[in-house]
Amino acid sequence: MRNTFGTRLTVTLFGESHGPEIGCILDGLKPGLPVDLARITDLLARRRPAGPTATARVEPDPFRIVSGVYQGRTTGTPLCILIPNTQAESGEYRGLADTPRPGHADYTGFVKYQGFADPRGGGHFSGRLTAPLVAAAGIVLPALEARGIRIGTHLARCGGIPDRSFSDLPVDLAALACAPFPVLDPERGSAMREAILAAAEAGDSVGGVLETAVTGLPAGLGEPWFDTVEGLLSHALFSIPAVKGVAFGDGFALADLRGTQADDPFRMDGGRIVTEANHNGGVNGGITNGMPLVFRTAVKPTPTIRTPRRTVSLASRSDTEITVQGRHDPAIAPRAAIVQTAVTALVVCDLLTEAEG
Amino acid sequence: MRNTFGTRLTVTLFGESHGPEIGCILDGLKPGLPVDLARITDLLARRRPAGPTATARVEPDPFRIVSGVYQGRTTGTPLCILIPNTQAESGEYRGLADTPRPGHADYTGFVKYQGFADPRGGGHFSGRLTAPLVAAAGIVLPALEARGIRIGTHLARCGGIPDRSFSDLPVDLAALACAPFPVLDPERGSAMREAILAAAEAGDSVGGVLETAVTGLPAGLGEPWFDTVEGLLSHALFSIPAVKGVAFGDGFALADLRGTQADDPFRMDGGRIVTEANHNGGVNGGITNGMPLVFRTAVKPTPTIRTPRRTVSLASRSDTEITVQGRHDPAIAPRAAIVQTAVTALVVCDLLTEAEG
Amino acid sequence: MRNTFGTRLTVTLFGESHGPEIGCILDGLKPGLPVDLARITDLLARRRPAGPTATARVEPDPFRIVSGVYQGRTTGTPLCILIPNTQAESGEYRGLADTPRPGHADYTGFVKYQGFADPRGGGHFSGRLTAPLVAAAGIVLPALEARGIRIGTHLARCGGIPDRSFSDLPVDLAALACAPFPVLDPERGSAMREAILAAAEAGDSVGGVLETAVTGLPAGLGEPWFDTVEGLLSHALFSIPAVKGVAFGDGFALADLRGTQADDPFRMDGGRIVTEANHNGGVNGGITNGMPLVFRTAVKPTPTIRTPRRTVSLASRSDTEITVQGRHDPAIAPRAAIVQTAVTALVVCDLLTEAEG
Amino acid sequence: MRNTFGTRLTVTLFGESHGPEIGCILDGLKPGLPVDLARITDLLARRRPAGPTATARVEPDPFRIVSGVYQGRTTGTPLCILIPNTQAESGEYRGLADTPRPGHADYTGFVKYQGFADPRGGGHFSGRLTAPLVAAAGIVLPALEARGIRIGTHLARCGGIPDRSFSDLPVDLAALACAPFPVLDPERGSAMREAILAAAEAGDSVGGVLETAVTGLPAGLGEPWFDTVEGLLSHALFSIPAVKGVAFGDGFALADLRGTQADDPFRMDGGRIVTEANHNGGVNGGITNGMPLVFRTAVKPTPTIRTPRRTVSLASRSDTEITVQGRHDPAIAPRAAIVQTAVTALVVCDLLTEAEG
Repeated sequence: MRNTFGTRLTVTLFGESHGPEIGCILDGLKPGLPVDLARITDLLARRRPAGPTATARVEPDPFRIVSGVYQGRTTGTPLCILIPNTQAESGEYRGLADTPRPGHADYTGFVKYQGFADPRGGGHFSGRLTAPLVAAAGIVLPALEARGIRIGTHLARCGGIPDRSFSDLPVDLAALACAPFPVLDPERGSAMREAILAAAEAGDSVGGVLETAVTGLPAGLGEPWFDTVEGLLSHALFSIPAVKGVAFGDGFALADLRGTQADDPFRMDGGRIVTEANHNGGVNGGITNGMPLVFRTAVKPTPTIRTPRRTVSLASRSDTEITVQGRHDPAIAPRAAIVQTAVTALVVCDLLTEAEG
Repeated sequence: MRNTFGTRLTVTLFGESHGPEIGCILDGLKPGLPVDLARITDLLARRRPAGPTATARVEPDPFRIVSGVYQGRTTGTPLCILIPNTQAESGEYRGLADTPRPGHADYTGFVKYQGFADPRGGGHFSGRLTAPLVAAAGIVLPALEARGIRIGTHLARCGGIPDRSFSDLPVDLAALACAPFPVLDPERGSAMREAILAAAEAGDSVGGVLETAVTGLPAGLGEPWFDTVEGLLSHALFSIPAVKGVAFGDGFALADLRGTQADDPFRMDGGRIVTEANHNGGVNGGITNGMPLVFRTAVKPTPTIRTPRRTVSLASRSDTEITVQGRHDPAIAPRAAIVQTAVTALVVCDLLTEAEG
Repeated sequence: MRNTFGTRLTVTLFGESHGPEIGCILDGLKPGLPVDLARITDLLARRRPAGPTATARVEPDPFRIVSGVYQGRTTGTPLCILIPNTQAESGEYRGLADTPRPGHADYTGFVKYQGFADPRGGGHFSGRLTAPLVAAAGIVLPALEARGIRIGTHLARCGGIPDRSFSDLPVDLAALACAPFPVLDPERGSAMREAILAAAEAGDSVGGVLETAVTGLPAGLGEPWFDTVEGLLSHALFSIPAVKGVAFGDGFALADLRGTQADDPFRMDGGRIVTEANHNGGVNGGITNGMPLVFRTAVKPTPTIRTPRRTVSLASRSDTEITVQGRHDPAIAPRAAIVQTAVTALVVCDLLTEAEG
Repeated sequence: MRNTFGTRLTVTLFGESHGPEIGCILDGLKPGLPVDLARITDLLARRRPAGPTATARVEPDPFRIVSGVYQGRTTGTPLCILIPNTQAESGEYRGLADTPRPGHADYTGFVKYQGFADPRGGGHFSGRLTAPLVAAAGIVLPALEARGIRIGTHLARCGGIPDRSFSDLPVDLAALACAPFPVLDPERGSAMREAILAAAEAGDSVGGVLETAVTGLPAGLGEPWFDTVEGLLSHALFSIPAVKGVAFGDGFALADLRGTQADDPFRMDGGRIVTEANHNGGVNGGITNGMPLVFRTAVKPTPTIRTPRRTVSLASRSDTEITVQGRHDPAIAPRAAIVQTAVTALVVCDLLTEAEG
């Protein structure tokens, strides 16, 4: 299955950066869920670049739902969301088709699609296609929240500066979802912004780490083999452009711990079974244990930068150089936070539907 | 799909640690592939624990192929591999059903399967089930090698000690696959073994990092969204018991780099397009670029250790303690190397079949 | 998978009869296929009702392709076709939500979607949704024809009157695809039209049988179990509204034959292996044998008729009556012919992609 | 997906007629279902040929469940059933590899598997592989019966002789499932047996029609497009060797009816909504309506008959003749009844799991 993800709740993504419309189909939704258009608008606004650390391309992201909703509620039939591309200026990208940008999908897309793909603005590979994913999350997030599930993502690291961690303090995940620059510690957030601006001034870009927490999940979601919670989530998360690593709980730090430091002893808490620590990020043997689901992704620095880069000409098969003048973020990680929350919401909703019908 | 993985080449896994037989079904194999039983035997031997750093449970792993092979070649119909459980001693695990081991799947399996799962030796969650995966890889590896693809995994880090990296030196991936303790630098390997023994003597265990390289892959494998190479591989790799993180290329280190440091400029090499560095691990935009595919996994320390651990009684719902006396590795990472190679081989074969029919 | 069909080439269907737009996503298309918009327009025109035997609702079926096509060729990324609903008059159907029409999906849709489905004009169940399927076939038919594959469907029986059979005469399948009332024998076609008109005048409707032939297929498509050619085709064909039976080759007539009458002896024809007869409809053991693929579907009479019918009120749960005044065909079979050709084209293209990459 | 069927409850089939073992994997079973080994033995006994109308090859069908069952109940993990091939005598089939039997899969299997398939006894295409399907049904039938669902199949027609129909009389579906020659009217059953014997004496074979009824199903199962109840069932039913047609309710007879004769008016019956007739076989718009699910399959006459048949030599590519001396039924339809019941049980269980979790 190519551009579709999910088992019971599936999302099918389509469109190109400079085509007339992009969108997605959500199939497997329960009938009767209230659809909150303002919530979708808010989430899309969060995904849009804003301020001095982000690209100048700002689209209003109007969207239309053309099926699957009747009288303000989901019908249970496929829900199609369409978002028009209103501000595409393909001239800026002219010439890229022959000289692939390093770190981008230009070359691999050329090979895979044998030269027939739409090259304008990255075509089907464009980060623009995360907008329908965010809109889709706007359909399922209210349903998750109604049953006590909260999802939030913060910029755990950016430009070499770490944020505080989820375990340091009580966190308002809902507030995090609304923040334009989602950090737990505003001072460190200011330092990150400065690092981003410094890189931008140098014609360069920075990477980061995004950390997500999901609270309120029941124990028992996921499968022991293949469709583990970690496997399903990572499968989806690697679709977020620039994500190159996914790690649960203490992640790669676990490699240097001893067993007595790394496991999570059980104890009773009221009538409920909990773990004393959460080194495993809420997953044991591929299945949720009822503790917060916590994971991090590594986001590489934006590959499109104004500094000249070496590349090749696909037509003449010779070495050359490229300087990209298009609008691009000096850091993709801050904007990707809402996308990570959105992808997580879709996978969590699928897991719950699979487990509970 | 629960215990099945793959798009064109699927593997379906079944069995319990102390049941009569475990096994898997490989479906979608091309007809006419030579089946090398000695190769499968060798791979299974590599997965078996050996020496002072490993558990005392050593099973000879006889296996039978009961379908899909005729006159020494694959038929193209489903190939079923069965491995009997000859040395299971379930007495050792008696009593575990009520007191879940921290860090294990005992509790989550209890919740998911409502108390009906076979609790002996971890049941369906047992690391024993990686044996059929390794045997299955023994079917596809010769076919991959025949077209110039090599896969090798080394212990990049264990007990806090780093191995040298793939980029430091020319690596014989084939030799790595045969090594009982796969490291690039034998001296660092010795230090790792000492660290493992020290932990074992303290009734404890250590974690590690496994790094895999795949050479000889064509450019163009994978999909831009969802079924990215990273997404498909990570989905499968998280099934390896104790894996908690997967990262491609420079992985989490990319988060602290600038764009000018992290991308991989293209250049011509003979008539071939290559990249000057491989920070992206051979994948751009979810699709292979023809460079070596390189990724790392974080393996947590074995949770089953002889030190008493706090847990709860599921029946009385009260706090208690557990001391596990069963046979277990003080480090799972060295044995998991061949499993990681096997899982990679199966995913790579699926990707090639999807791309080339 | 709910509203998606196919293995390598998938079609995902969305929309409601009286919503703003309906459409489908085609995923898995090869890059570089020429897209012939006029051909799609022609096929949609064939699906539209015309003449005295059909409903008065005639929509021009303008359509838009919003993704997956660049410079007149497929890109290989998901292709989204949208068709606006321009003439919907939902007033005519008002009141139906409470009194389900016999033979329709009103009641079963009400149960399945718990009362939240869009009831106007049949909503997601409407025959309107076959328009995107026909448009999708317009993408793949030229590619099939370019490799010598022809697909045609005729009205083998209608109102009790049989057409001649495919085996009686040489058939121009391409001409059949363009015919507004597709029969092999024009005289019998006239008799069928009279039967339809007679039923319409009596406020009633008639059923029919549609027979499809596919020529030019290679031997070897399909699987021995589950994904047999018969299984895959029938799975899709039962989505055509009113189809209640699917039979291959001689179909139900085979039940009364002896083995010596029913098998298809092989013989050489030039250098090619052929069968002397085609009782099996081109399929042996679930797999194509290189002879024409031939099958029939049973199409029930249109359930929406002007004669009063007994039904129940869902709200008061009491017996009542319904008389439907909407625009409807007295015979759905003639219009369904092009839909059957379209569905067949999509399944055949999927089978070829699966077999040949 | 090749040899796997199902959405939530999947069955994966493997094995060859003359290999060491055949079997299947059932995945997606609920944990805690009682496993009745005697029931499975009984069902397998029903599938075995018996009496003068059947082949002389009688295997005792011992079976082993090697995973997914613990202390007499399903665990919820994959259940593997193995059946050894004890009486295979491959000598009888020697020589068939080069001269494909008309009406069989010998030729299509040769093309599909490029000559590498196991040709002995039909290999993977053999009707022997229906034994694991029947055994699998023995796992799910008790669970279906426990919730009031009954499934029965009778020989509605054989050798040109019709049985009475389900609608003629009250039917004990449970008794039907135990009958060695399942007919509603014993006298007509005797006539059918005579017709079968007459064909056998003439070195020939006969076809038949199998009709299945499922009672106790809730309304609301199935999907409006693609995964209709008719589509899912027919997809699976065409895997039963020799089935060439599937029709629901009145099936092909609907083609000659008028709308006023063919629809099924609703009425209240107690507090329940029922239909006055069941021309639609319990399905409207692809979804169950709560009435009995009724369908028929067309079973062609056994193609393997002792009369010499024309065929070709695959090696010399010239015309030749074949006379098959192996053990074969003069009528496959009577034995296929229990297979049809089994396949139906598996699909119904999948539909219920999909709808109810």
